[in-house]
Amino acid sequence: MPLQDHHQIVSVDDHLIEHPQVWQSRLPERLKARGPRIEEQNGKHVWHYDGTIFPTVGLNAVAGKPAEQWGMDPVRYEDMIPGCYDPAARVKDMDLDGVQAALCFPSFPGFGGGVFQRAADKDLALICAQAWNDFYIDEWCATAPDRFVPLSIVPTWDPELAAKEILRTAAKGSRTISFPDAPVALDLPSFHSDHWEPVWNACEETGTVLSLHFGSGSFVPGFSFAKSKAMPGEMVMPDAPFAVAITLFSTNLMWTLTDLLFSGVLQRHPKLQFSLAEGGIGWIPYILERADFVWERHRHYQHDIDFHSRPSDLYREHFWGCFIDDEFGVKNRYDVGVDRIMLEIDFPHSDSNWPNSRKRATEVLADVPDDEVVKITETNARTMLRFPRSS
Amino acid sequence: MPLQDHHQIVSVDDHLIEHPQVWQSRLPERLKARGPRIEEQNGKHVWHYDGTIFPTVGLNAVAGKPAEQWGMDPVRYEDMIPGCYDPAARVKDMDLDGVQAALCFPSFPGFGGGVFQRAADKDLALICAQAWNDFYIDEWCATAPDRFVPLSIVPTWDPELAAKEILRTAAKGSRTISFPDAPVALDLPSFHSDHWEPVWNACEETGTVLSLHFGSGSFVPGFSFAKSKAMPGEMVMPDAPFAVAITLFSTNLMWTLTDLLFSGVLQRHPKLQFSLAEGGIGWIPYILERADFVWERHRHYQHDIDFHSRPSDLYREHFWGCFIDDEFGVKNRYDVGVDRIMLEIDFPHSDSNWPNSRKRATEVLADVPDDEVVKITETNARTMLRFPRSS
Repeated sequence: MPLQDHHQIVSVDDHLIEHPQVWQSRLPERLKARGPRIEEQNGKHVWHYDGTIFPTVGLNAVAGKPAEQWGMDPVRYEDMIPGCYDPAARVKDMDLDGVQAALCFPSFPGFGGGVFQRAADKDLALICAQAWNDFYIDEWCATAPDRFVPLSIVPTWDPELAAKEILRTAAKGSRTISFPDAPVALDLPSFHSDHWEPVWNACEETGTVLSLHFGSGSFVPGFSFAKSKAMPGEMVMPDAPFAVAITLFSTNLMWTLTDLLFSGVLQRHPKLQFSLAEGGIGWIPYILERADFVWERHRHYQHDIDFHSRPSDLYREHFWGCFIDDEFGVKNRYDVGVDRIMLEIDFPHSDSNWPNSRKRATEVLADVPDDEVVKITETNARTMLRFPRSS
Repeated sequence: MPLQDHHQIVSVDDHLIEHPQVWQSRLPERLKARGPRIEEQNGKHVWHYDGTIFPTVGLNAVAGKPAEQWGMDPVRYEDMIPGCYDPAARVKDMDLDGVQAALCFPSFPGFGGGVFQRAADKDLALICAQAWNDFYIDEWCATAPDRFVPLSIVPTWDPELAAKEILRTAAKGSRTISFPDAPVALDLPSFHSDHWEPVWNACEETGTVLSLHFGSGSFVPGFSFAKSKAMPGEMVMPDAPFAVAITLFSTNLMWTLTDLLFSGVLQRHPKLQFSLAEGGIGWIPYILERADFVWERHRHYQHDIDFHSRPSDLYREHFWGCFIDDEFGVKNRYDVGVDRIMLEIDFPHSDSNWPNSRKRATEVLADVPDDEVVKITETNARTMLRFPRSS
């Protein structure tokens, strides 16, 4: 019988909306005016950061609203349910949803800290990234340490500084960093360079997982969106509906996974673990079979391809996938790898099934044996994140 | 028993290498010097077209060579087996491979005619595109009309001219056009505009299938490749091995398919048929489930999304997929749709199993019932291409 009452759900992909005091209560006095703060603009709440306006995005806080009322427009805090920005209220929302523990990604900074990566003043950006980590670990997670899994973001513009922040936050409990799925799209070196060695070393040393959330590198999939991004000088508005990009979120992670499988990074760092966040799992067997096929045939004339490591083996040693709602993936779970599938809730975003996440998971897992349900909903995530049940 | 001797293989994706006289024997005298011609350069054969050099690509003609000898360098005609450029020799190669009929895509013009799309002199380009069609239909296919399926390329820069060429070539037997999978990457309007209406109308009127071959829009998947393409001014060499792009070929077609599913084109043109060439099939159920999920949830706030057509239904009415070697896809053939799966041989490219295509297909289809094998290897392709068995 699937998903019985004693089964706990540990979600590896949720989101929080930063409350207005996250940075204002932490930055030194001299930086407060330039640090992120909430302003009113045309009746909406927007972030103001070092001279730039960042609209909040309606789709990021739709929990509790019917789909007919969703939109891309900015919203006010009063338009969100408090669980978006208040950890005590969030615990109640999780109780309602039947979810025991959640790993929350940032909103204003971007999933992988891209706003700070693009900021001109990198000293300010570093302090702001550290303030987010202190907020999430010391304030949010501390509210209910068995319900929230510590995560941190890093100063992606400097691998040595990033390594230091990994060590600093790991020391106070961080289990994973949210790292860009597409550093190249942020004008950073790709996973094929040795630029990131300090990050890999720090993650291995501390047992920190790299959570790669689709979109954390600011790359939006789809021809129309890739084009509008590629031409910053002559802003081309994408003519495709955003539904195209939402459908294709997973292709970002197909690209990221394939980069890493052929990068040599995994061979140099055998302890590294990567979580592919919000990409689903139904595509994984196809891509792994294809990667093996290419590796068999094309390695001979291409440099830097390791002849000893089959891509699908590397996947099963280094990667973890998760899903919200992926019947085809669950049906093919043995080809995906049952020991590395996890659940995500995606609260309070528009893909989430809240407050029916547990109900929907029960439906999707209806034909899955008990021991596999436990792995998928709870123990795989606890193993990956080193986040055991509190007894 | 799968793939018995009386089962015929009809491949919907093969390639030919144009011989040196394709254009020189067809262009008017005044244009011959500027039209495509083969030159010697450092001991290699390269194409010379209107002042620009186009290297031939070694990977495009590896049939018969062991993988250890493959490479990206240009080759000479003498380095290829004659079946690459000679239709009579090709028939013998197909006999050896157990393949009855083949649909061949162009090489020098690009799979979808992108070289002519990018050419400065569009009058010359039109004549060259028409010459390719005349060569393939009147010379190559005419050599063995029951072994080669007529296809044409179109002047993609002008939808009205393209429509005329569709009518002209359909009248002499063309069953399908090779159309760019990513017009946006060729600086053309996307499938979301009404720019392409003349093409859709001409295809519906003549029953012409649109074959969308991955890469026909010159878009190479992968972050490192997308970046190098996006910055033509400051050529960035991709640092990823090309194995990454080869693994990800199918993501092009995921993008193309999703564009079309949300474009409204299929509702306006209920007879249109699209063949997704060289993208595999194992990913299709995941993307369709995801598209349906997005359509259910996100259609309310996005304009131009039809509330009546479920994306997976549109797929089953308008699309056909094919594979070379996709065990996961074959295992999940009911979720892909057995009536719209076809085989491709990809001769003489590096992904082809030639001369063991039939042997490999027998292995991949080993657990598939007889009636489904017939559909996948032969009758689906014959139906899509209106190319019946000659009795």
